[in-house]
Amino acid sequence: MSDHDDDGYEMPDREEFQHDPLGHAEVRGGMTVGELVEQYGHAGIGAADVHEAADIYAEMLADDDCTVFMSLAGAMVPTGMRKVVSDLIRDGYVDALVTTGANLTHDAIEAIGGKHHHGAEHHGEKTEREHDETLRDEEVDRIYNVYLPQEHFALFESHLRDEVFPALEAEGTVSIADLCRELGRANSEVNDREGVEEDAGVAAAAYESDVPIYCPAVQDSVLGLQAWMYSQTSSFSLDALADMTPLTDLAYDADTAGCLLVGGGVPKNFTLQTMLVTPGAYDYGVQITMDPAATGGLSGATLDEARSWGKLEKDARNTTVLGDATIMLPLLVAAARERIE
Amino acid sequence: MSDHDDDGYEMPDREEFQHDPLGHAEVRGGMTVGELVEQYGHAGIGAADVHEAADIYAEMLADDDCTVFMSLAGAMVPTGMRKVVSDLIRDGYVDALVTTGANLTHDAIEAIGGKHHHGAEHHGEKTEREHDETLRDEEVDRIYNVYLPQEHFALFESHLRDEVFPALEAEGTVSIADLCRELGRANSEVNDREGVEEDAGVAAAAYESDVPIYCPAVQDSVLGLQAWMYSQTSSFSLDALADMTPLTDLAYDADTAGCLLVGGGVPKNFTLQTMLVTPGAYDYGVQITMDPAATGGLSGATLDEARSWGKLEKDARNTTVLGDATIMLPLLVAAARERIE
Amino acid sequence: MSDHDDDGYEMPDREEFQHDPLGHAEVRGGMTVGELVEQYGHAGIGAADVHEAADIYAEMLADDDCTVFMSLAGAMVPTGMRKVVSDLIRDGYVDALVTTGANLTHDAIEAIGGKHHHGAEHHGEKTEREHDETLRDEEVDRIYNVYLPQEHFALFESHLRDEVFPALEAEGTVSIADLCRELGRANSEVNDREGVEEDAGVAAAAYESDVPIYCPAVQDSVLGLQAWMYSQTSSFSLDALADMTPLTDLAYDADTAGCLLVGGGVPKNFTLQTMLVTPGAYDYGVQITMDPAATGGLSGATLDEARSWGKLEKDARNTTVLGDATIMLPLLVAAARERIE
Amino acid sequence: MSDHDDDGYEMPDREEFQHDPLGHAEVRGGMTVGELVEQYGHAGIGAADVHEAADIYAEMLADDDCTVFMSLAGAMVPTGMRKVVSDLIRDGYVDALVTTGANLTHDAIEAIGGKHHHGAEHHGEKTEREHDETLRDEEVDRIYNVYLPQEHFALFESHLRDEVFPALEAEGTVSIADLCRELGRANSEVNDREGVEEDAGVAAAAYESDVPIYCPAVQDSVLGLQAWMYSQTSSFSLDALADMTPLTDLAYDADTAGCLLVGGGVPKNFTLQTMLVTPGAYDYGVQITMDPAATGGLSGATLDEARSWGKLEKDARNTTVLGDATIMLPLLVAAARERIE
Repeated sequence: MSDHDDDGYEMPDREEFQHDPLGHAEVRGGMTVGELVEQYGHAGIGAADVHEAADIYAEMLADDDCTVFMSLAGAMVPTGMRKVVSDLIRDGYVDALVTTGANLTHDAIEAIGGKHHHGAEHHGEKTEREHDETLRDEEVDRIYNVYLPQEHFALFESHLRDEVFPALEAEGTVSIADLCRELGRANSEVNDREGVEEDAGVAAAAYESDVPIYCPAVQDSVLGLQAWMYSQTSSFSLDALADMTPLTDLAYDADTAGCLLVGGGVPKNFTLQTMLVTPGAYDYGVQITMDPAATGGLSGATLDEARSWGKLEKDARNTTVLGDATIMLPLLVAAARERIE
Repeated sequence: MSDHDDDGYEMPDREEFQHDPLGHAEVRGGMTVGELVEQYGHAGIGAADVHEAADIYAEMLADDDCTVFMSLAGAMVPTGMRKVVSDLIRDGYVDALVTTGANLTHDAIEAIGGKHHHGAEHHGEKTEREHDETLRDEEVDRIYNVYLPQEHFALFESHLRDEVFPALEAEGTVSIADLCRELGRANSEVNDREGVEEDAGVAAAAYESDVPIYCPAVQDSVLGLQAWMYSQTSSFSLDALADMTPLTDLAYDADTAGCLLVGGGVPKNFTLQTMLVTPGAYDYGVQITMDPAATGGLSGATLDEARSWGKLEKDARNTTVLGDATIMLPLLVAAARERIE
Repeated sequence: MSDHDDDGYEMPDREEFQHDPLGHAEVRGGMTVGELVEQYGHAGIGAADVHEAADIYAEMLADDDCTVFMSLAGAMVPTGMRKVVSDLIRDGYVDALVTTGANLTHDAIEAIGGKHHHGAEHHGEKTEREHDETLRDEEVDRIYNVYLPQEHFALFESHLRDEVFPALEAEGTVSIADLCRELGRANSEVNDREGVEEDAGVAAAAYESDVPIYCPAVQDSVLGLQAWMYSQTSSFSLDALADMTPLTDLAYDADTAGCLLVGGGVPKNFTLQTMLVTPGAYDYGVQITMDPAATGGLSGATLDEARSWGKLEKDARNTTVLGDATIMLPLLVAAARERIE
Repeated sequence: MSDHDDDGYEMPDREEFQHDPLGHAEVRGGMTVGELVEQYGHAGIGAADVHEAADIYAEMLADDDCTVFMSLAGAMVPTGMRKVVSDLIRDGYVDALVTTGANLTHDAIEAIGGKHHHGAEHHGEKTEREHDETLRDEEVDRIYNVYLPQEHFALFESHLRDEVFPALEAEGTVSIADLCRELGRANSEVNDREGVEEDAGVAAAAYESDVPIYCPAVQDSVLGLQAWMYSQTSSFSLDALADMTPLTDLAYDADTAGCLLVGGGVPKNFTLQTMLVTPGAYDYGVQITMDPAATGGLSGATLDEARSWGKLEKDARNTTVLGDATIMLPLLVAAARERIE
């Protein structure tokens, strides 16, 4: 037994074994997030993926020649990720954002002073039918464990009709990115004028930082419903295809390209597919998803699958973090910022 | 012990206990799918949900006054669900279909004679990076365990440029539903002309049966990329908002309304949200999803959550089947057809 | 375009492409379960796995030289799978069953006349804290959407103390399989004596068919708690290791061996690990699980991973069905029975 | 619009709305883990659960009268959680540990100088069959993305036969906790004698700190297989029921009781069920699991469901974190330690 204090055993001589042995993660009170993520690097299963993802993301952000595309699916804004994203934009860490109408809707509601609310203390275990019937009577909409009074949607409608749509109407048919920029401008101005203390949000940050927002399925949201209703009585309309030109140009012009994919859905694929009509492909890819690959759906598809389509370079660095984006996004961002700032 | 051969115990007198006790599912060789689903009704967990879903779906289809909206997310067509859906359309069981550009793309590829291929025998356990690098070299795209030679996309491009886009170009800006209908017409005609034995598919069936197809995020697909490239050199373009008028009209005019939601994503929400601008709401709702509600995302959200928004009637019958749609959709359709035909 | 009605394209010449192209599943009202599963074989993602699993399972059952090990995790008996399993045992399709104390506890409760109950109509969406507080007050235990009055546990205790433990006490320390066999005998006799109409269940069928039941973690159940309490005032005790001898002997003596793994947990691993101390390994493996492999846990581990340990033969046929066992087990059993009977 | 900078809207007057509105998580480089977890408290979905879990766990650890039960399922030791757990034990934060034979096996292998290895760089996407066939030939066992040369099992066997079993043999039939304690002693001594630099691990820490380890399904592991083989040629055997007495006594004597459940399986239920035979129940409960409740299995069951059985006090504080334990356990421990140290 004299030799196995240095493990004795020689792993087979194959590339995949040329790694240090697994260590033991060690934690202590007061450690930084970056230190925690370093410890994840000693562990297996998902912890190893978080470590790898933070490493790739930090490298992507530190690479001055890298154009960073960020996709943001689902309902990340009403569930508390708004400032994480707007800070990334303001600090220059996002070159284009692809997102959903839901995120833009709830972002604007907060910008004009509306609030989302935590559900009952034991959120996550309170979903029965009667409960939702009651919420319906009380005019409160539920997004899992987050509640939003429907009244805010009326204020949002006024905001759009007073501050956003009129300026666009003059131009007739506009791109969806134009709508997003105008919404960002209006959010920024109203927030400022009304003295709302909170950050004016994602669209405002993008407007102020001249970062484009793409929202391919905008009609699939309250923002889209409002745009449609406004279009019924005006010459305003939205061109479904126009945004693909500047997005493709951005990918075409990138020296290197990286993507941070937060959740799946349309934002993920729209971000990836632009490489199908561009000679290059992503050099870095990090995704956060709760969908296992075995669903067969795009949301859970590995980035290796994307490689077969030519969306990632063959030698790209990529990894997938399987977990809740409200936990994983702040964790990755804090770790990457600690590394590079 | 004399009294518990009839169970003895009286369940507390609350509405939720006024049910027969759980039984024991019983199966035998040669039983029909409908008989199997009846047996599921004796069991708990997911089996009870399948039984309930088949019951609601059969009731929805048998209700002559019910307008049936069907959403079809993800990549259901390349993974083998094409004929299940086209048969439902041809048999009058779908009044409007909301789907993805991916489904329409792969539907057309099959219509013009292309084929998808099973992955390696041990599909589902073959996803490593080198493997996808090899597929990239061989110009084969992978969708989980389904492979598609990239060559088919070139044939699809010719199909669109020869048979689909020219007729639309004359109209300038068209709705996405117009594009879907024209694609269905072209698929139908080419399939017929070329003598392809297979069914001409989902879009063709919808065209022939005058069922509208809505595809809100069409730009997020190869079909959308092709439409964009064509628009660069022609006056052709797509209106992102136009489809919301006929879809809302359909919901508005429905005596009763039901939805079968296959997968989540944009098709699910677009189908549900039309009720936000309609006085009524869905009376029946069945969804198949692999996303648990705890992701907090729309794809996994319960239909009870949708009730809080007013997308379902307070007294609607609804249930969720948690499972792979390639398994669950054929199962539900076979059981419902057995019941009502 | 003349050549692609036969697809034109030649797939790269690699073993994994030597398959027929993917077809289109087709369903009709009145089809048998076996016919449905044949249709799954045309599709991708999970449907292809169900088809493969049914094929392997039917081959395993039809192989007269094959010793079939079945593992049954979790709470399959209270959720309605009791008769599916007891019928398999009675019809000679199981040579050894590895299961949990929970299954044996609820199996006995039904044998002596107790009943489980469906939860509220909208089961699966009724989990809030107050609800469970009420159930606590009403002395009703919940297993997801299945309810059991606690009173039944008192009757179960009497059954064990009157009919099961005394016979074992005389032997002092017995194996867990001895306890399972004695429980099966008692269930069978009481059920018969009391004239309970239902099947006497899994343990009774195993007793009557001379099929051993192994339950490695029996102490982790109400059955185990009762055994422990009885042991406090008697000479009765259970040997934790004794069962490994006959189980290993069975594996050792098998010409060919197959396993049907229903759920994960201890029953899955205990069934697999017996091959670590046997020269051979499983020739057939089918598992049903809801855990994706990415959890890193044993319950979701692929059978390919088991191959690295030598638990499956290198050339074994194996597949995993990802889905709810209350749905998938009856489906697979009905399809396999249709094939071989 | 003058009033909604303070939100204007009054939420309905119900207990569940008496909360501050949702805020926006904010992250910065260099923040501590505790600060990050505070920020999670502003967000929804899973982030809110992590915040709540850390709060409950810190309260549990800070409560001097609280007896803390910890369950550790699956393969947490080979995947890097060994030192997180051994440090908790050494620092007095664990009063009883319930775990698996797999954890004890891999813990001992590291104690005697063996090492686990990271899988290939792109771990998590490298699971194909041929790969595992190769590992089989190379005598390397795989646990998801962690590799272990089989040679280490031979050294483990020697360790058990030389250092552990002989001392127990003299006592004849012993409890499983006795085996765990003896293993801890041997690990501690060998590690010290051989000068292995690494921490001697979980069992050693428990031995040195006089914390009992319970392992109900010990026979379901390589440790159990070795124990069985040794019992074949000696008078050594294990009593399956004996541990329930001291575990129940510990629960009985606790002023207040809390549980940290890492993963599901037997360790989770064995920890919970001890309250079925104790007048009290858990006052605090935190669990980390990747299984959604909808599987219907025990591993994913909510702690509210446990409340219906009386395993938790009606007014207990409890929450579930849905995520990978290799990520979540270090995160929770670091946050709780920061709070209380």
